[in-house]
Amino acid sequence: MTKMIMHGCNGRMGHVIVDLVKEDADIEVVAGVDAYGESNYDFPVFKSLSDCNVAADVIVDFSNASAVDGLLDYAVSVNTPVVLCSTGLSEEQLNKVKEASSKIAILRSANMSVGINALLKVLKDVAPLFAEAGFDIEIVEKHHNQKLDAPSGTAIALADAINDSFEDKYEYTYDRSQRREKRRQKEIGISAVRGGTIVGDHDVIFAGLDEVVTLSHRAYSRAIFGKGAIQAAKFLGGKSAGMYDMADVLA
Amino acid sequence: MTKMIMHGCNGRMGHVIVDLVKEDADIEVVAGVDAYGESNYDFPVFKSLSDCNVAADVIVDFSNASAVDGLLDYAVSVNTPVVLCSTGLSEEQLNKVKEASSKIAILRSANMSVGINALLKVLKDVAPLFAEAGFDIEIVEKHHNQKLDAPSGTAIALADAINDSFEDKYEYTYDRSQRREKRRQKEIGISAVRGGTIVGDHDVIFAGLDEVVTLSHRAYSRAIFGKGAIQAAKFLGGKSAGMYDMADVLA
Amino acid sequence: MTKMIMHGCNGRMGHVIVDLVKEDADIEVVAGVDAYGESNYDFPVFKSLSDCNVAADVIVDFSNASAVDGLLDYAVSVNTPVVLCSTGLSEEQLNKVKEASSKIAILRSANMSVGINALLKVLKDVAPLFAEAGFDIEIVEKHHNQKLDAPSGTAIALADAINDSFEDKYEYTYDRSQRREKRRQKEIGISAVRGGTIVGDHDVIFAGLDEVVTLSHRAYSRAIFGKGAIQAAKFLGGKSAGMYDMADVLA
Amino acid sequence: MTKMIMHGCNGRMGHVIVDLVKEDADIEVVAGVDAYGESNYDFPVFKSLSDCNVAADVIVDFSNASAVDGLLDYAVSVNTPVVLCSTGLSEEQLNKVKEASSKIAILRSANMSVGINALLKVLKDVAPLFAEAGFDIEIVEKHHNQKLDAPSGTAIALADAINDSFEDKYEYTYDRSQRREKRRQKEIGISAVRGGTIVGDHDVIFAGLDEVVTLSHRAYSRAIFGKGAIQAAKFLGGKSAGMYDMADVLA
Repeated sequence: MTKMIMHGCNGRMGHVIVDLVKEDADIEVVAGVDAYGESNYDFPVFKSLSDCNVAADVIVDFSNASAVDGLLDYAVSVNTPVVLCSTGLSEEQLNKVKEASSKIAILRSANMSVGINALLKVLKDVAPLFAEAGFDIEIVEKHHNQKLDAPSGTAIALADAINDSFEDKYEYTYDRSQRREKRRQKEIGISAVRGGTIVGDHDVIFAGLDEVVTLSHRAYSRAIFGKGAIQAAKFLGGKSAGMYDMADVLA
Repeated sequence: MTKMIMHGCNGRMGHVIVDLVKEDADIEVVAGVDAYGESNYDFPVFKSLSDCNVAADVIVDFSNASAVDGLLDYAVSVNTPVVLCSTGLSEEQLNKVKEASSKIAILRSANMSVGINALLKVLKDVAPLFAEAGFDIEIVEKHHNQKLDAPSGTAIALADAINDSFEDKYEYTYDRSQRREKRRQKEIGISAVRGGTIVGDHDVIFAGLDEVVTLSHRAYSRAIFGKGAIQAAKFLGGKSAGMYDMADVLA
Repeated sequence: MTKMIMHGCNGRMGHVIVDLVKEDADIEVVAGVDAYGESNYDFPVFKSLSDCNVAADVIVDFSNASAVDGLLDYAVSVNTPVVLCSTGLSEEQLNKVKEASSKIAILRSANMSVGINALLKVLKDVAPLFAEAGFDIEIVEKHHNQKLDAPSGTAIALADAINDSFEDKYEYTYDRSQRREKRRQKEIGISAVRGGTIVGDHDVIFAGLDEVVTLSHRAYSRAIFGKGAIQAAKFLGGKSAGMYDMADVLA
Repeated sequence: MTKMIMHGCNGRMGHVIVDLVKEDADIEVVAGVDAYGESNYDFPVFKSLSDCNVAADVIVDFSNASAVDGLLDYAVSVNTPVVLCSTGLSEEQLNKVKEASSKIAILRSANMSVGINALLKVLKDVAPLFAEAGFDIEIVEKHHNQKLDAPSGTAIALADAINDSFEDKYEYTYDRSQRREKRRQKEIGISAVRGGTIVGDHDVIFAGLDEVVTLSHRAYSRAIFGKGAIQAAKFLGGKSAGMYDMADVLA
């Protein structure tokens, strides 16, 4: 059985994952970590990983960018793989992740769902085809009214997946109201809609001459992200050092 | 038969309207006006209304904001009704329109289509109902990659129609990437997507607790705007001074 | 505090409602009824209403059409209002509902959500406007792969709301693959998509000359139906005999 | 310069293609064929191919299934490649096409647009991935109210492209109103919406546990099909015998 530490156990996704793990005979939470400290779980909860004295096969992280440095230091020191789901990492932090992956197994993904990971795969294939045919590329994402950041990490990941296929990179545009000009060819407009309790919608739009192709993903509950994280945790336990992503898990 | 002057006859919508008028036995174009001057029409074209010596029952305008002051002065001086379709008017110009409407009939509309005008009507009814039930309101519009302004005049008109029902007005938000905070309750986010030859899509989104209602309009050709303008021109000829809108025409 | 009997307490919606009622200080479940009998609730559960000896202010029904006759007989005999949410009633049953409403208060609705009820209201206003302008009307609904009936009761209710405005009624069409002919003008095509765990999407499409208006509703969880039913139950307790609908509750 | 015969020159797509060819310096229409006979074209029009005495490099066909047998016989007899765009061919006709392709080059495609052909390619890649993850597959297509057949040839082609990846084939379902049961796992529901002047929308829906991925294509004008057919005609002229499809042209 895989033993996991839940990093960020008091957050929304922390709760979702702890609940899902209860129904899974192949994995258990042996400790939680959260800056807010004690909670009603039936496993010990520490304010910080440096206080944690419980051994595990894998750490699942749904905390936030500010906690990621401490997480990486700890994981390397105890030689434990990490499923890294926090978004909004700085360039510096991304380098630190890469460095750490020379010593431990790290799986990083902005979105753990089967659907988004299938889209990421598809985009690499079709973006060049559409670009060559003169199609413009745009992304619209929609999330609930409590979300702090915009655009979503997943929207950026989708744009990055497109950009991976091009030498001459697209720039990302978040606001067109301040200029008065035709659309630039090498830009991807990314729009962020916020409202109600929308879990997460993402549309990737290819707009050409008199035709539009849209690849869209809609999440109906956060459970899909939790399930993906648990799948990833079970996959990553015991893996050798290196960078992994959900494509490896789903393959 | 209604005699009309086409103001902005060399633009994209000018061409659409001139073509549609040819197939309509009840209206004819007796003169065109366009800053770009002479063109291949079978009616006289003037560089400016002040050069125009042809009498008409109505002026249809699809030029741009900078030409609107001259248009109003001329129309008042010759006592001729105006179908005013240019968007992006300043506060000052809107006042001038209002003033002119005490002397001549003016029909102003950001969008001449049956569908958008039906939505404008519906929004006045349902926006208060959704607002009271705690739904957030957002607008997404999509247009072709040659469009200069963002968001579209129609998107603003939709937001304004919603705001008409509230004392405590909503603010419009065009970019959320520069702040890190939860959605403000009294804002309407308006997103502008640009790509390909998209004629004009508008989605008004009401997002509540675990449910979303979307009212959407999609245009497949510019002809729908031209048809509405011609319908309006025929309606407006001979009308007494005052402000009219497409709701009057469609009623 | 409103005392309610949950009719169909072991079904999916029965569970949702019982859970929601626990968090509401103004209403409590005093008994459950379900043909499947005993369950783990902290209130008595009867196999049939005829066994039920607990008095209540209102009965909330999410059972199925076959249980509705017994429900109406019981409710009239104990003079208790009913929130009737079962769908698929026969013409005969609808007459029986009407008859019963001369003695007790009955609120019947195919869908208890704020959003669908707002759409029902809007449709009565705009359907004639679109019909006069020559728009065709179509409905597409999407539900999870466990749903037995197609199309959904809500789709039929939307079509019926449209038909309410016309003397010359639209016919409903569920399959076009067996004929080879142009669309008939006085028909509403209703398509049923089934897949995954989709909670319930409904699109009402008005398709005209080069423009399409779509009014769509998406449910993200069954809780919205439960909340509406509880709101209706609290509204209906103590009301005099007659037919009510969600529009009365939301007004 | 490629010389083409337009088979079905008086139909809607025939007109679109003739107009587009006029603006293309690399291809010209040398003859038209249409059962309705003479029309206002500046090339000779024959009632049947058997009357046609004009040599060409390629025949472009947008007629209908009943004319396809004669077309194949003629093309083989004069050894001329065919771009075959008529839909609704019988099993027997498909065999005849295959047989003919041993003697001449034939490119058959239900839909000539860049976008649909990109989707066909994508579907072969992702359908197995989604199927393995337990997603259900559904297709919704929308067309104008003059279309005779339902579902569209393109919808069938999309379903067929999915089925290509599976040994255990999916069955196609066009109507769920006549049965009362849960969705069958190995079925693809195909819904046909008809209204207004909708040029052609196709949605391929993958519905899983709490998430839905939709791949959608929207056509804004018939020109996209004409452009694809002309591209195909230029590609096919001079090619050796065999079956080709748009993927070969776009590669």
